[in-house]
Amino acid sequence: MTLVTDPAAPRIAIVGATGAVGSTLIELLEERALRHRELHLVASSRSAGRLIPVGGRPYEVQALEDFDFGLVDLAFFSAGTGVSAEWVPGAVAKGALVIDNTNAFRMDPGTPLVVPQVNFRTLDEPPESGIIANPNCSTIPLVRVLQPVERRWGVRQAVVSTYQAASGQGHHGVEELLEGSELALRDPDAELPAERFRPPLAFNVVPFIDVLQDSGFTLEEEKMVRESRKILDLAHLDVTTTCVRVPVVNCHSAAVWIEADAPVDRDELIALLSAQPEVTVHDAENRAAFPTPLEAGHPDHVHVGRVRVSPHNPRGFWLWLVSDNLRVGAALNAVQIAEYVLGRGFLAGGTR
Amino acid sequence: MTLVTDPAAPRIAIVGATGAVGSTLIELLEERALRHRELHLVASSRSAGRLIPVGGRPYEVQALEDFDFGLVDLAFFSAGTGVSAEWVPGAVAKGALVIDNTNAFRMDPGTPLVVPQVNFRTLDEPPESGIIANPNCSTIPLVRVLQPVERRWGVRQAVVSTYQAASGQGHHGVEELLEGSELALRDPDAELPAERFRPPLAFNVVPFIDVLQDSGFTLEEEKMVRESRKILDLAHLDVTTTCVRVPVVNCHSAAVWIEADAPVDRDELIALLSAQPEVTVHDAENRAAFPTPLEAGHPDHVHVGRVRVSPHNPRGFWLWLVSDNLRVGAALNAVQIAEYVLGRGFLAGGTR
Repeated sequence: MTLVTDPAAPRIAIVGATGAVGSTLIELLEERALRHRELHLVASSRSAGRLIPVGGRPYEVQALEDFDFGLVDLAFFSAGTGVSAEWVPGAVAKGALVIDNTNAFRMDPGTPLVVPQVNFRTLDEPPESGIIANPNCSTIPLVRVLQPVERRWGVRQAVVSTYQAASGQGHHGVEELLEGSELALRDPDAELPAERFRPPLAFNVVPFIDVLQDSGFTLEEEKMVRESRKILDLAHLDVTTTCVRVPVVNCHSAAVWIEADAPVDRDELIALLSAQPEVTVHDAENRAAFPTPLEAGHPDHVHVGRVRVSPHNPRGFWLWLVSDNLRVGAALNAVQIAEYVLGRGFLAGGTR
Repeated sequence: MTLVTDPAAPRIAIVGATGAVGSTLIELLEERALRHRELHLVASSRSAGRLIPVGGRPYEVQALEDFDFGLVDLAFFSAGTGVSAEWVPGAVAKGALVIDNTNAFRMDPGTPLVVPQVNFRTLDEPPESGIIANPNCSTIPLVRVLQPVERRWGVRQAVVSTYQAASGQGHHGVEELLEGSELALRDPDAELPAERFRPPLAFNVVPFIDVLQDSGFTLEEEKMVRESRKILDLAHLDVTTTCVRVPVVNCHSAAVWIEADAPVDRDELIALLSAQPEVTVHDAENRAAFPTPLEAGHPDHVHVGRVRVSPHNPRGFWLWLVSDNLRVGAALNAVQIAEYVLGRGFLAGGTR
């Protein structure tokens, strides 16, 4: 696909361009032909000098340390929370609008936390901080279904157990899973690599993602609660979660139990969810149909299945969610934020 | 290990002796030196004639069709619900007490459904039907923790998401997972076997176990509700569940959310669970410690970790459970029933 450059469009940088989310951002820029005048690929000095083809021509990766953010209007950051904490303020000071895919600024009051399908209105004004934060991969599909349910029936409580893929730990996470799986198949007593996942993820499930917080929950688990509250603007929303890594390459799943404030009708629930943008409900007609990471369907949709109201609690129901964590849960959401911002016209070069 | 045969002990048959649960039963008979006078290994005619070493000597597998249950005092059945439905009544008519590991008689009012650590009192009298039912693999660990919680605080609701291993589908399930994983590693586009698991389980998670019921829940999911109610003798217990198969060879896990009727203190909860027989709590001291299928520890224990009370709902808490589904979830429970029954003395040959 050729990338059309547009002299009236913004100059864009992708920081973390060699990572799993960065590569997906580049893919989406091509697929969706996001308007831009220039594209800069930025990464750590280790990757500097690498050539990455975009829209048919090679782009040289530039070292973050040497990059001048004064050259761009919009910068996507997806190189880890530490990198964003250190470099985003400088990029903003140089005049770039930042769409940050890390945890660094999500809870900052001057930074909107945006899922365009859910709270695009928070982008009606340019962000105070100069930053727009992209939520965590497992928060995004959840709020996409939680918002319509909350508006229709009210949510007393959401109880979420996740089944998160190795790609959430980037390329290295996927490599570690595949390498460990190969070793384990060859020799069941082999010592498996356990750098990204401890204990090893191959033929295992690991109920611990990111670091422990004072509450006893992990950071991954706390993110889902506080991000959902901020995105849905419901300060007391009761979301509770156990986040578990599973030996899947890509696509996060979640078993979501929602107890509403009023009885829920399954047909109405399915109609409501089916009407959401980029949501596919698999078991509207055939109750035995459901999405899985390997066979979900459209990679840009939130996939819903196993929709069932409890026979002994008419206010409670289950949903099974599957979505591509690199696209829906990260890069696509960031690109959709950029598309919205371009449309609003408060980005340099984005007025036409 | 040598198997001691005891002239005063019962004659035992294992039906389904070549299957995953049957093999585990044989292992446990040896390990725990279950007293018996004779041992008969029974399976389908396909497996008849095979020699299986037990306690150092070979036992010939006999065909179920030809087997005379008048020769035994006690028969373990674990060859599938259909086989039990067809053959158990005849075995009982011939005078054998049956410990049945299938779904065939679990909800029969004349058949106790037993987890010895939880409701051994239901064995105070010989079962009316001549059958004692062993609960489903994912029900057993749940009721082991649910009972003490219910007695201490009351249970408003339990919300359970499972992470179930391939061995729940027997030897063939494990083979299919391993074969599929090998193929997928060699060629990501390979067509994977999908006979036991559909879609394929390798590098996937499949939220559908057993067949669909009218409620929209699967049979596996319904079992957990109704079996828990029967075992705990709580007709209105609110348990709701999503049962998911994961690419793990052996050991089921579950993320269990329990909302109690009163605020729960974490230290007291941990003390309570730690005091249960054959339950190990991993995060009593180190909150970052947790069990996984690959590294749970003692294969005969229910392993508990990630014990945490919700910061915004003091009555609600999470547990992460891991247990060996072939042992704790099936064969060990059956053997512990047999041990209890032998002790009670209402089994022929079990009076001494």
